[in-house]
Amino acid sequence: MSRIVMKFGGTSVADLARIRYSARHIKREVDAGHQIAVVVSAMAGTTNQLIEWCNEASSLHDAREYDAVVSTGEQVSAGLLAIILQDMGISARSFSGWQVPIKTSNVHGAARIEGIESSLVDARLNEHQVCVVTGFQGVSENNRITTLGRGGSDTSAVALAAAVKADRCDIYTDVDGVYTTDPRIAPKARRLSRISFEEMLEMASLGAKVLQTRSVELAMAKGVRLVVRSSFADPDAPQIASDGSNFGVPGTLVCDEDEILEKQIVSGVTLVKAEAKITLRSVKDRPGVAAAVFGALADEQIIVDMIVQNVSDDGRQTDITFTVPDGEFDKAMAAITLDEERFEYDSIAGAKGSAKISVIGVGMRSHAGVAASMFKALSEEGINIQLITTSEIKTSVLIDERYAELAVRALHTYYGLDRDEE
Amino acid sequence: MSRIVMKFGGTSVADLARIRYSARHIKREVDAGHQIAVVVSAMAGTTNQLIEWCNEASSLHDAREYDAVVSTGEQVSAGLLAIILQDMGISARSFSGWQVPIKTSNVHGAARIEGIESSLVDARLNEHQVCVVTGFQGVSENNRITTLGRGGSDTSAVALAAAVKADRCDIYTDVDGVYTTDPRIAPKARRLSRISFEEMLEMASLGAKVLQTRSVELAMAKGVRLVVRSSFADPDAPQIASDGSNFGVPGTLVCDEDEILEKQIVSGVTLVKAEAKITLRSVKDRPGVAAAVFGALADEQIIVDMIVQNVSDDGRQTDITFTVPDGEFDKAMAAITLDEERFEYDSIAGAKGSAKISVIGVGMRSHAGVAASMFKALSEEGINIQLITTSEIKTSVLIDERYAELAVRALHTYYGLDRDEE
Repeated sequence: MSRIVMKFGGTSVADLARIRYSARHIKREVDAGHQIAVVVSAMAGTTNQLIEWCNEASSLHDAREYDAVVSTGEQVSAGLLAIILQDMGISARSFSGWQVPIKTSNVHGAARIEGIESSLVDARLNEHQVCVVTGFQGVSENNRITTLGRGGSDTSAVALAAAVKADRCDIYTDVDGVYTTDPRIAPKARRLSRISFEEMLEMASLGAKVLQTRSVELAMAKGVRLVVRSSFADPDAPQIASDGSNFGVPGTLVCDEDEILEKQIVSGVTLVKAEAKITLRSVKDRPGVAAAVFGALADEQIIVDMIVQNVSDDGRQTDITFTVPDGEFDKAMAAITLDEERFEYDSIAGAKGSAKISVIGVGMRSHAGVAASMFKALSEEGINIQLITTSEIKTSVLIDERYAELAVRALHTYYGLDRDEE
Repeated sequence: MSRIVMKFGGTSVADLARIRYSARHIKREVDAGHQIAVVVSAMAGTTNQLIEWCNEASSLHDAREYDAVVSTGEQVSAGLLAIILQDMGISARSFSGWQVPIKTSNVHGAARIEGIESSLVDARLNEHQVCVVTGFQGVSENNRITTLGRGGSDTSAVALAAAVKADRCDIYTDVDGVYTTDPRIAPKARRLSRISFEEMLEMASLGAKVLQTRSVELAMAKGVRLVVRSSFADPDAPQIASDGSNFGVPGTLVCDEDEILEKQIVSGVTLVKAEAKITLRSVKDRPGVAAAVFGALADEQIIVDMIVQNVSDDGRQTDITFTVPDGEFDKAMAAITLDEERFEYDSIAGAKGSAKISVIGVGMRSHAGVAASMFKALSEEGINIQLITTSEIKTSVLIDERYAELAVRALHTYYGLDRDEE
């Protein structure tokens, strides 16, 4: 017997038919004798409607009232799921965030979970009652409903799994796992049976969009094993992973690096398109200049992605290049050119239309030459590299957007990630 | 300065434009220096959608989960109203039933309010913050959300008014008061400036449909003065009643009889159509027979309206007549004829297509001959009376449905209720 938290996102509870289908996944686990807590999102579309109403009511709405309104979506889906489970003969009840309670900070609209008093849920789980908990929300110390911000349901699920000491947390979504790259770009993309938390973090923040970054960070910190799997899969199919891995389900296990025996040097290739690059030339090389530049951008709420600054050859001036989304390019240029004196550069140049390609893998730590081989693979395709940044388990390059898909496919093949032809 | 509870029903918060319009009524009272608590229903249509989902999820759904789902409607409208009030520069916040808390029995779907801990709301009112409270719901001692059943928002408003010792409770609806009769039937129907609780109770249960019966009972018991008024009226119109009455608003004040100086003998005429009558002839006149008959009907969930039994002339047998809605006629006949022996009657007769006309007025208590004059007025129109029942402040007759509207208009004129022609 295991204790499992199962999380179902908006598309998995989009309507009653989908909720019923998701309930069959729950029934399978209950029938196997497991103790089950479920975390649900709102029915797809509901949250957007509620947000729209709040915005229509006032463009500057009180975040506390926004939370009261928007949190109702999960209350509805949790109640309906509990009813459907009961209809299948499964003991179940719903819990709103405040009923658990899931205690959060009082930063409404973007609250952080501070603690979960799990004794009530714990007792119900021990009685083998399915506890259906509303995701995305909690309650502040002032007894007001809070929401965690977009994608917060994944975080709710991980936090609940940590609180009730679940053996794993299954994230049911509309894809059946984490892929080596986007299958729409590289048809030979393969589902990973395992991926480390660190790699998943790089994947999530680089555009894989399967799991919310915060939830992966929390899972890593609390040691909660995550499984990304599809709620659209046949709930009654035999639950044996094709790779024979021990968690026994088709999907991707996100876990500690130590659980991954054969580490790939590269686990995945990611792509972010529509990046604009801006270069400041001959910037005075002295403390405070970079802070001034990026402070000005932060003041405009512009999120900067890559930043590269080289060591200056004469110790007096240097070049700084950074990237922003294409849509923010004009705003970023304006922020930097408005008050040129302050930033002390000679000239500024920039252009839209680049793409960032990254290769990710914990194996890089122990394998030299990954970056070099990446550049080689790209040069073989005649692709010029504009910018390079690296982290411990990731190497990213900026290239002309026109070659983005070609680069992803080339690297995917080069690092041996292609699916075997059957 | 007064303390006022303002209740807005589903049509008064049907969409953001309607909520905004209702908010202007609140602003008027706030600007006048009053302390305001607001009770809201769900946006019209929302509750039906939520109920439909529950029914679709399972025909035999858990009432606790039903309550969790259905109660979200008011949470949304309360939050949106609070946002709109703030947008108008009015200090406001929403309260869910559990946040107040409004404590109820745990009869889910039809809970009764057992007490309101008003200290939190009270403190906010003293700070002149508008407290927007979700109607129709509360929380059980098990910390689960309960609903009060259909129309429960009126009851929430009255209970809150009693708890915070409000000077009055304004029920905003889609009509501008209580009328002497249905204006669609008698175009000369007049809005009553005042009506007693007792009369309102008879009006409400006889089809006036303006106020929920339970809320009037509670208001009478707690001495809460109610004002029925229209949220569709111009919020900025001068708030002086045309009759100069002291509550200062156009609408109908529902209050204690003592507050009504000039008591009308008859305050209103009501009509219920589609009544079926069933007569049991030569029933054995002995204890337990009536109980057996109406017990059998109750077992079938048939709600019986009028019941008439005459004193038997020989002390051995009597006739019993009762009415049920036309739609229940066949079921009622079946229940009574299934086991004839048990009910010990000689013959049974029944027919659909009657109408019940009632005249209501506290003045009847002190005026003899109201019933007699009613029969006279009807006979002058050639209308035959099938059945008569009376209570202290009401006389009802059953007549052929074809003459229903004629009878209402005749009685309305006869008792001097017609509006003056201007």
